[in-house]
Amino acid sequence: MFGAHAIDDDRQVSLLDTTLRDGEQAPGISLSPDEKAEIARELDRAGVPVIEAGSACTGPGERRTISRVTDLDLDARVTSFCRGIRNDVDLAVDCGVDGIHLVVPASDRHVEGKVGSTRGDVRETTADLVAYAKAEGLWVEVIGEDGSRADLDYLEELMATALEAGADRVCFADTVGHTGPERTHEAVSRLSELGPVSAHTHDDLGLGVTNALAAIAAGADLVHCTVNGVGERAGNVALEEVAIALSHVYGIETVELERLYDLAQLVSRTTGVPLPPNKAVVGENAFTHESGIHTDGTLKDEAMYEPYPPETVGRERRLALGKHAGRAGVRAALDEHDVAASDGEVGEIADRVTELGDRGRRVTDADLLAVAEDVTGGDRERTVELLDLSATSGGPVPTASVRLDVAGEERVASGTGSGPVDAAVAAVREALGPAGDAELESYHVDAVTGGTDAVVTVEVTMGRDDRSVSVARSEADITRASVVAMVDALDRLLETEGETPAVADD
Amino acid sequence: MFGAHAIDDDRQVSLLDTTLRDGEQAPGISLSPDEKAEIARELDRAGVPVIEAGSACTGPGERRTISRVTDLDLDARVTSFCRGIRNDVDLAVDCGVDGIHLVVPASDRHVEGKVGSTRGDVRETTADLVAYAKAEGLWVEVIGEDGSRADLDYLEELMATALEAGADRVCFADTVGHTGPERTHEAVSRLSELGPVSAHTHDDLGLGVTNALAAIAAGADLVHCTVNGVGERAGNVALEEVAIALSHVYGIETVELERLYDLAQLVSRTTGVPLPPNKAVVGENAFTHESGIHTDGTLKDEAMYEPYPPETVGRERRLALGKHAGRAGVRAALDEHDVAASDGEVGEIADRVTELGDRGRRVTDADLLAVAEDVTGGDRERTVELLDLSATSGGPVPTASVRLDVAGEERVASGTGSGPVDAAVAAVREALGPAGDAELESYHVDAVTGGTDAVVTVEVTMGRDDRSVSVARSEADITRASVVAMVDALDRLLETEGETPAVADD
Repeated sequence: MFGAHAIDDDRQVSLLDTTLRDGEQAPGISLSPDEKAEIARELDRAGVPVIEAGSACTGPGERRTISRVTDLDLDARVTSFCRGIRNDVDLAVDCGVDGIHLVVPASDRHVEGKVGSTRGDVRETTADLVAYAKAEGLWVEVIGEDGSRADLDYLEELMATALEAGADRVCFADTVGHTGPERTHEAVSRLSELGPVSAHTHDDLGLGVTNALAAIAAGADLVHCTVNGVGERAGNVALEEVAIALSHVYGIETVELERLYDLAQLVSRTTGVPLPPNKAVVGENAFTHESGIHTDGTLKDEAMYEPYPPETVGRERRLALGKHAGRAGVRAALDEHDVAASDGEVGEIADRVTELGDRGRRVTDADLLAVAEDVTGGDRERTVELLDLSATSGGPVPTASVRLDVAGEERVASGTGSGPVDAAVAAVREALGPAGDAELESYHVDAVTGGTDAVVTVEVTMGRDDRSVSVARSEADITRASVVAMVDALDRLLETEGETPAVADD
Repeated sequence: MFGAHAIDDDRQVSLLDTTLRDGEQAPGISLSPDEKAEIARELDRAGVPVIEAGSACTGPGERRTISRVTDLDLDARVTSFCRGIRNDVDLAVDCGVDGIHLVVPASDRHVEGKVGSTRGDVRETTADLVAYAKAEGLWVEVIGEDGSRADLDYLEELMATALEAGADRVCFADTVGHTGPERTHEAVSRLSELGPVSAHTHDDLGLGVTNALAAIAAGADLVHCTVNGVGERAGNVALEEVAIALSHVYGIETVELERLYDLAQLVSRTTGVPLPPNKAVVGENAFTHESGIHTDGTLKDEAMYEPYPPETVGRERRLALGKHAGRAGVRAALDEHDVAASDGEVGEIADRVTELGDRGRRVTDADLLAVAEDVTGGDRERTVELLDLSATSGGPVPTASVRLDVAGEERVASGTGSGPVDAAVAAVREALGPAGDAELESYHVDAVTGGTDAVVTVEVTMGRDDRSVSVARSEADITRASVVAMVDALDRLLETEGETPAVADD
């Protein structure tokens, strides 16, 4: 395939989503029925034609959830995973699914070691169960488990048996993420001679997408994926990656690409698995440009450093400051904050920003503005400054008090909240009155791993009207880091607005 | 390539690491000189033969850092990125590097739009600069920037010019992560006719590894990678994925695989980019098994659900509880905690664990033990219980007090720490005395995104001798969540040890 054009743009390829089944089998992920229903609805909206909603044999809770999904009356075909047991098929039928994935052992390791059976017996059971499921009116896909480690001759026999018994399609499964594109291509080529073939790939070797494409090149027309690639071990192949690769490289459309980002955020939120910043399509940085040369290029021509516009997948471009921001990046950021500077000053500011970065610092708006003031000689007076902070937590009513200097006047206020940070934020807002009404556009705390004395990095973005300012603080005390960052951001916002804050209840 | 065996196991392929240059260009990443030196040392230990240490033109801080790395006297060749400017080469020489990557525009978009030059002029400059750098005794790789969007005939001419001028190798760069394996294969095949070729791939379409393999199949023998795939936008292709795929699928060894995990953790810690749980090779879950059938299979035969043993990449296997744990998984976990249960009881416990998961709960040791006690009728008395907690933070000395019930006796103690959680943990340890001496083996707080009132999930693992217990708590108050989880874990540890805690200073 790499040499020729084996994937023509008139190929019909569809995606099957198994976030709710194989995705949920990832350690630590448990989705509630409401969450599963919400994800299924969004997948359906994005045009995913087959949704594997769960595994009916897992238990009554799982069956209620599958029924919730089948009750949604989606356009998508809703399916359940079934082991090679008649009772599993019955349980799936009880949930009202449209189809099943019948999983039967294909490698000798699974036939003998796991199930304690023989190749012949597995073929017989498979034929029986397919006939049984078809008689129930189900769409049936037969998955040869651990197919990538199976003897290919036997895999071919097993899948031929399944198709002869009436299966709608068979699936080549790289269950443990063991194989490469050559073997995938060979196996799927042979199975494609028999009937419609699906591919189920895992990413243990980083080859999830490679093998999915090899399978498609060899004739597969349905690819099993999960949103964000969640799933056991290294996860399944990511739906958004297969979708964008097929669209961008081969001109093959599968799902509504502009819904991919919302879908990614929904799955991240419900599974608790954060989106890695450097994740294709859906990562925070996928369309963020920091480095000097690149930001410069991007400012001149948006396609200079982007394979496709972010809007394609429902996102927006972001320019970020940082040690590589360079003159063009710094100039753009200063313009955004209405800060005037000569070319020479911009050069000096860019150098100092780079210096900050060289010391290992994350460079935010507040850092840039502080450097710019210093360089341009703008003698800046703070409008708001935190003098004292005290927060009490652990008990039933987290409480905090702050003492602020607001344009030379001392103000004291208190507040309560759901935790110490929330209480302190309430106190700051109370002290500032209407001037504190800026929106907390984002509040992000890096995951903390290590000890309870680990340094925590808090990044807040506060905005009002069309301006926003980001500030990051790193301290061991999460309360202090959060409040100092918020006060600094508010101070920056008030500065350009030039207003002296009034107190609400004066 | 997918059809035949284009990558034979006698191929020599090497990896170049550009974590310190292209990796550091990712938004938000800034590495200090010490951090860069530490990463370079570890890369060298892992046998990475070429390390791109930075971009000498970025500034004096960056140059000092590159010099730090060249001063380490590593086995690896240490290089710098250079733009097509003589001064960049001079700056690199000043840093004492062994070689450079000379980056010249290859696509018309870059030749004309970015640099404002012509194809002819770029070829001329390239020839001049290569000759200049070679005269300085440098190893020279010429990278055709945006090569994947270049006219292939021109790319071939440009690279031929570079090699004729004395370049040691040329690099096919998919700078914006735009292309697929077919075009990569075609371009690298043509360039390979001219001389040694490297491949530089990005993951914007999820094709970083696919394109790296296509390049190797077409003759490339050096692949540019970054640890954990950090880098601009969706990042570069991940070093650990290319290394394991080449080793496992093609029998080609590049680096010391067993050092990959330590390397991944080092880069994650220094860059602040967390390892995604479902990341190939280095993700937390890459060798963790939760689901019932799979845990069962893994208990019977370790290779049942693993492509290769975790020790290969310096890791260990982990069995995790969860809603899919199933009977075999539950039995294994109960054994670990010395809890006796009949087969019937194990079945009931497994069902209840599944139920917990169905409600969207993460299932920890503490949950399992609570369910087990309930099912087996073990009437359990708590040894330690938190009665009151109060923590003050925000000021210079975060302070906390606790009131505990310890085996019927009330104990009050206070402590200080670097933040409210740290102070409260100190107070708990003080109240418990020697019994509180258990080690906090891990403390993890999920990243918080949203508002300051967001629910925070804290997971602690406490251990003593060879036993450990994990507990998770989700609350809006991070102090309370942390302390309740810690006290619960200590209570579980004390229970099996059967001791009544003495107070240290009694």
